[in-house]
Amino acid sequence: MSSSAPASGLEAKAAKKLAARKRFEDVFPLLVEELIDYLKSEGMPAEAQEWYRKNLDYNTPGGKLNRGLSVVDTVDILLCTDAGGKRTRELSEPEYLKAAILGWCIELLQAYFLVADDMMDASLTRRGHPCWYKVQGVGNIAINDSFMLEAAIYYLLKKHFRQDSYYGFLLELFHDVTFQTELGQLIDLITADEHHVDLSKFSLEKHHLIVLYKTAFYSFYLPVACAMHMAGIKDESLFKHAAAILLPLGEYFQVQDDYLDAYGNPEVIGKIGTDIQDNKCSWPINVVLLHATSEQRALLDQHYGRKDAASEAVVKDIYSASNIDIPSKFAAYEKKSYDEITAKIAQVDESTGLRRDVFTSFLDKVYKRTV
Amino acid sequence: MSSSAPASGLEAKAAKKLAARKRFEDVFPLLVEELIDYLKSEGMPAEAQEWYRKNLDYNTPGGKLNRGLSVVDTVDILLCTDAGGKRTRELSEPEYLKAAILGWCIELLQAYFLVADDMMDASLTRRGHPCWYKVQGVGNIAINDSFMLEAAIYYLLKKHFRQDSYYGFLLELFHDVTFQTELGQLIDLITADEHHVDLSKFSLEKHHLIVLYKTAFYSFYLPVACAMHMAGIKDESLFKHAAAILLPLGEYFQVQDDYLDAYGNPEVIGKIGTDIQDNKCSWPINVVLLHATSEQRALLDQHYGRKDAASEAVVKDIYSASNIDIPSKFAAYEKKSYDEITAKIAQVDESTGLRRDVFTSFLDKVYKRTV
Repeated sequence: MSSSAPASGLEAKAAKKLAARKRFEDVFPLLVEELIDYLKSEGMPAEAQEWYRKNLDYNTPGGKLNRGLSVVDTVDILLCTDAGGKRTRELSEPEYLKAAILGWCIELLQAYFLVADDMMDASLTRRGHPCWYKVQGVGNIAINDSFMLEAAIYYLLKKHFRQDSYYGFLLELFHDVTFQTELGQLIDLITADEHHVDLSKFSLEKHHLIVLYKTAFYSFYLPVACAMHMAGIKDESLFKHAAAILLPLGEYFQVQDDYLDAYGNPEVIGKIGTDIQDNKCSWPINVVLLHATSEQRALLDQHYGRKDAASEAVVKDIYSASNIDIPSKFAAYEKKSYDEITAKIAQVDESTGLRRDVFTSFLDKVYKRTV
Repeated sequence: MSSSAPASGLEAKAAKKLAARKRFEDVFPLLVEELIDYLKSEGMPAEAQEWYRKNLDYNTPGGKLNRGLSVVDTVDILLCTDAGGKRTRELSEPEYLKAAILGWCIELLQAYFLVADDMMDASLTRRGHPCWYKVQGVGNIAINDSFMLEAAIYYLLKKHFRQDSYYGFLLELFHDVTFQTELGQLIDLITADEHHVDLSKFSLEKHHLIVLYKTAFYSFYLPVACAMHMAGIKDESLFKHAAAILLPLGEYFQVQDDYLDAYGNPEVIGKIGTDIQDNKCSWPINVVLLHATSEQRALLDQHYGRKDAASEAVVKDIYSASNIDIPSKFAAYEKKSYDEITAKIAQVDESTGLRRDVFTSFLDKVYKRTV
């Protein structure tokens, strides 16, 4: 077979996705240089420059980059397709760069949270490497390092967006979503303390709040809201409509995550679920608590959040017991979520400048995923 | 003596200062209610509301409040005195409240830094109480709590200053100064590691950078810059002039602090200095390193940063050795700083709206203090 043979449709799509990722990744080193140049301009010693560079490089790229790439994809849809969904043009290089910078600001926000979360959860590894605070010589300096990942966001926004009419909205958006995510983290920390299992603290309402605040705002709403600002959308009701689609979508995504932790194929999802042993306030346990008999509840109190496989097996048996049957309850939840989200997407009025495809492309990535 | 007998001038001044502090302190509970109301409006559970309230109350008031009170004092001078220094009016209640809110935003910024610094330094007490992370049940949740102290700043600025022409400048000012303070903390952390004493990392230049970035920007420049914005000052060169006075003043203040740590009277300053035992990159050791003979340097390498009184005594002897004589070098430094700062204050053009008294009132509080 000739090496110039045409790739199959699937291969072409994968190659395109890889190229898009590569183009996005290639922006990050430029931003690191800007930040290090700032440190230089302030007369910071070489050791401090190197430390910050390592902090940025170690903690920001290396993940799935879904949030950052979403900004670029959304800006592309909003600026380059018409109300009928037809592509009308390509992003200019400066437009691409600005979208990518907003994307990296969200990845920096995520890095800020994850460096801190790993310390609070006493995690050991992240993305296959030691957590930053576990790196030789770092330790608790990681707290200040997390602060400096956040500071990078506002430095970059000032440098690249100060002249834009929506600059103030971007600052407030990042402030608001940061606060919301910290609220979500707080509820999670005081609800699901790994060392003090207390299932009476759990409820589907708590789970809803944790997921919404800790994940959905910054992972689903923020990328699209950034892109909408960049695309010149000003009408507040459109941001509300976007939130009304994206927040339930984010919740659905997290419920899937929780479900796959217990029922996913470890060979497919690439990790072995630990939510039960880690006393996580996850979706299955909250549904189980609603339906458990008093005998099942007693067993859950005894075995949930214990660090041993036998206890975990007891809990998993209850998850699948006929009076509970988490898999069928999840299937019902998934159908209901999908239908509701789809209905709200259908209500998007494309004459406003918003595009349904922004949301369907998100939903398609999430619906019935197994990984 | 009748209880209505007139107080002496000194007593009246102290009473006025106490009343000013009380008025400022009384604003904080209102801000806590606003923040808790926000949590309520977002549907946060009662435990999360209570946790945040405790975080705010435990970590924000209780210090000297110098930074917060400076904002109020500076706004008062800028809005209520004429170019001759004569008082023309009093702040209105809404003006006072806004100045006090800016003051509390700086106190919140300080709280954000201190909660984290105490964790990074593994400190045990702060202001006579256990450090927040040492409080029963808090631990590493304190990291997220520090984030939420910072988040409070931007919530309050948005709520109270969004309509003001200088709102954007305030946001950038807080962002910029936050980043600078984090840079100062980083240099300090990687220069003066308590567990790896290495005097070759020290220098007066490093000391200058640490003091400027870690302390002077947020403690001296930020309060005055906030007040200048509130007083309607827009000319960037005036902010630069203010910085050119306040940053050296902040540095002078910190050098005093470092000097008093070694030479102050513990009964007057209320604490026993620990900089030598804690391997601090403080002013005296950096001056000593410039002048030490090779024998003295060998002793310093051996004894600086050791947790015992005998080593500390060896270091202190060198501080006061005749070829070094820190007290006379400090006196010379103090005179030079005072003269330079005074000269820059004299150059302030009061027709611009700025007032010399803003700076002299700072300088008077700092010059030749023993406490």
